[in-house]
Amino acid sequence: MPKKKIVVIGGGTGTHTVLRGLRKYSDQLDIAAVVSMADSGGSTGRLRDEFGLLPIGDIRNALTALASEGDKYDSLMRQLFLYRFNRGTGLDGHNFGNLFLTALTDILGDEVSAIDAASHLLKVAGRVIPVTTNNSQLVAVYEDGTMVTGESNIEEGEEALSRSRIQLLSLSPESFITEKAARAIEEADLVVLGPGDLYTSVLSNCVVNGFSEAVASSQGKVVYVSNLMTRRGQTIGMHALEHIQEIEKYIGRAPDIALVNSSVFSLELLSRYEEEGAHPVLNNCIDGVCTIQSLPLVSEEEVVLVSGDILKRSLIRHDSDKLAAELMKIMVGSLNNLTQLNHKTSPSETQTLNTVSAVH
Amino acid sequence: MPKKKIVVIGGGTGTHTVLRGLRKYSDQLDIAAVVSMADSGGSTGRLRDEFGLLPIGDIRNALTALASEGDKYDSLMRQLFLYRFNRGTGLDGHNFGNLFLTALTDILGDEVSAIDAASHLLKVAGRVIPVTTNNSQLVAVYEDGTMVTGESNIEEGEEALSRSRIQLLSLSPESFITEKAARAIEEADLVVLGPGDLYTSVLSNCVVNGFSEAVASSQGKVVYVSNLMTRRGQTIGMHALEHIQEIEKYIGRAPDIALVNSSVFSLELLSRYEEEGAHPVLNNCIDGVCTIQSLPLVSEEEVVLVSGDILKRSLIRHDSDKLAAELMKIMVGSLNNLTQLNHKTSPSETQTLNTVSAVH
Repeated sequence: MPKKKIVVIGGGTGTHTVLRGLRKYSDQLDIAAVVSMADSGGSTGRLRDEFGLLPIGDIRNALTALASEGDKYDSLMRQLFLYRFNRGTGLDGHNFGNLFLTALTDILGDEVSAIDAASHLLKVAGRVIPVTTNNSQLVAVYEDGTMVTGESNIEEGEEALSRSRIQLLSLSPESFITEKAARAIEEADLVVLGPGDLYTSVLSNCVVNGFSEAVASSQGKVVYVSNLMTRRGQTIGMHALEHIQEIEKYIGRAPDIALVNSSVFSLELLSRYEEEGAHPVLNNCIDGVCTIQSLPLVSEEEVVLVSGDILKRSLIRHDSDKLAAELMKIMVGSLNNLTQLNHKTSPSETQTLNTVSAVH
Repeated sequence: MPKKKIVVIGGGTGTHTVLRGLRKYSDQLDIAAVVSMADSGGSTGRLRDEFGLLPIGDIRNALTALASEGDKYDSLMRQLFLYRFNRGTGLDGHNFGNLFLTALTDILGDEVSAIDAASHLLKVAGRVIPVTTNNSQLVAVYEDGTMVTGESNIEEGEEALSRSRIQLLSLSPESFITEKAARAIEEADLVVLGPGDLYTSVLSNCVVNGFSEAVASSQGKVVYVSNLMTRRGQTIGMHALEHIQEIEKYIGRAPDIALVNSSVFSLELLSRYEEEGAHPVLNNCIDGVCTIQSLPLVSEEEVVLVSGDILKRSLIRHDSDKLAAELMKIMVGSLNNLTQLNHKTSPSETQTLNTVSAVH
């Protein structure tokens, strides 16, 4: 039996999480990760500015998620790609995987060859595909007219706490989808958007020219995995419905299914997020938007903070295994019931909760 | 038939050259490289200072010399280890192999584990062994009483051009030979010193406590490969005889055989070295010091300058293949004739030229 094709679209930690879970099904799945190329902060931003290369931080995230841990040297290569220097003039804060990809790009001449070589060296179970190879910056125009350029500027800084909602996201200069990304989406049995920051990890893919056309041509079901928490500069005050509506706005159709977390968080955790103006993304969806699966999807494992990680990013995370198991259920269900199933109807094994939450 | 054991002692470019040649005989040879741990300049020096690690530049040199080029990914790993960043704040000038070893050391906890892991990842044909794991600096006391601390300070700077000869080389604090290095030397059929800068690459090994005892316990013949050119701050005005006498002074015995180059250089090349006060090391040996093999050993290939290389280091180099072929001849000769041969007598296949050159 040929493997089922799944494509995960995103970029950051959320994409790493879902890919890490899916990797365990790689004997049954042909996994592709289509990855945002809009990162502009931190180690990636420094390399982007100083080497004139495409931003490779999100690529590195996806590569490490799909990397082998077959033997101790495989694990070591993966650990190296995750390693971040925590001292050394000019080195401090640089991720070793980013430096590896930068050196590879210099040696091989382009980023795509570097990604292919790194995929081989890391024995990646799947394919990691840049959504575009155009070197563009995200531009967010807010409802109050403010325009912010650069992925990192959208969410960093005090001013990000008080911004209005993003009215229009785009890339400047215009960018075009790579053929490999378009084909992966078109041929997928399941297209997974997220989890990840709505504008800087998910929609940063959707605004690439040709992306929505690829989704429209795809035979696969489209699943949106909603973020767990809102994010300053991006989604403050937005709940699941508003997230889904934004997806629809940019790709021209609502997802077939949205996975929304139903776990509750401790007050201690919530108060740490509160400082950043961040709240849980609640399920406030009304009937008919799309099939909502409201499930406990949060990792209960204690989060190990990797040096250089942003603390707030790390405390509340999706559970890789739960997420992957749900996606596998949807994949099997949608394939089994392809003829009987209307995509607005939930498959039998899912729990549908179309309620309107009180949003404050 | 068990493999013959050869140990190469040194550190820099010269060690890389001889190991690269010997690697081709790795089906017949058990190759060990015992490597100086006194490097204090450039990328290695920065990492040494800022990370508090042992200097790993000479280790990286030896690893890349013995690394596999079996398939394109092996070659790529080797190229990565040789790659030097030529831009980027704080990255410029850093060797990627050094950063790789630094990250590995941080992950695995110590330099020896990092060297072992890198050896595996690079499919190294042989063993690369630090002469010591004590973190010490070279100290050179010159005939005029000047004391210079730190490998890079010995040869860098304008003042290195006008220094007198080094009267005493030592390491501070005292350092002790690793058990693996001692065993490799003791068990070797052939012990090769050099080529390399006399004080900073060759004698920097010899001054480690336990080194001369290991050589004294070895059954193997000791071969010294003389440098091609003199080096400021180290060997200005010294010819083959003075090099050999210095070896004898520090290890308590003369080498059995010295390989001295007989090729001549173009005036253009010589004038470029002249600017640095450097001249060819001539064969000025008198009878009885040791067996002198005077041979054309210089590479005739056009030197490809790797970004970040020091120009002067790169123009005149030993030929890897010629050097390895001569060492193989000595190995075979000395093993065949072990019982008949007095170690002060040259084997039949060598050309012995014991002449006194005019040294100015």
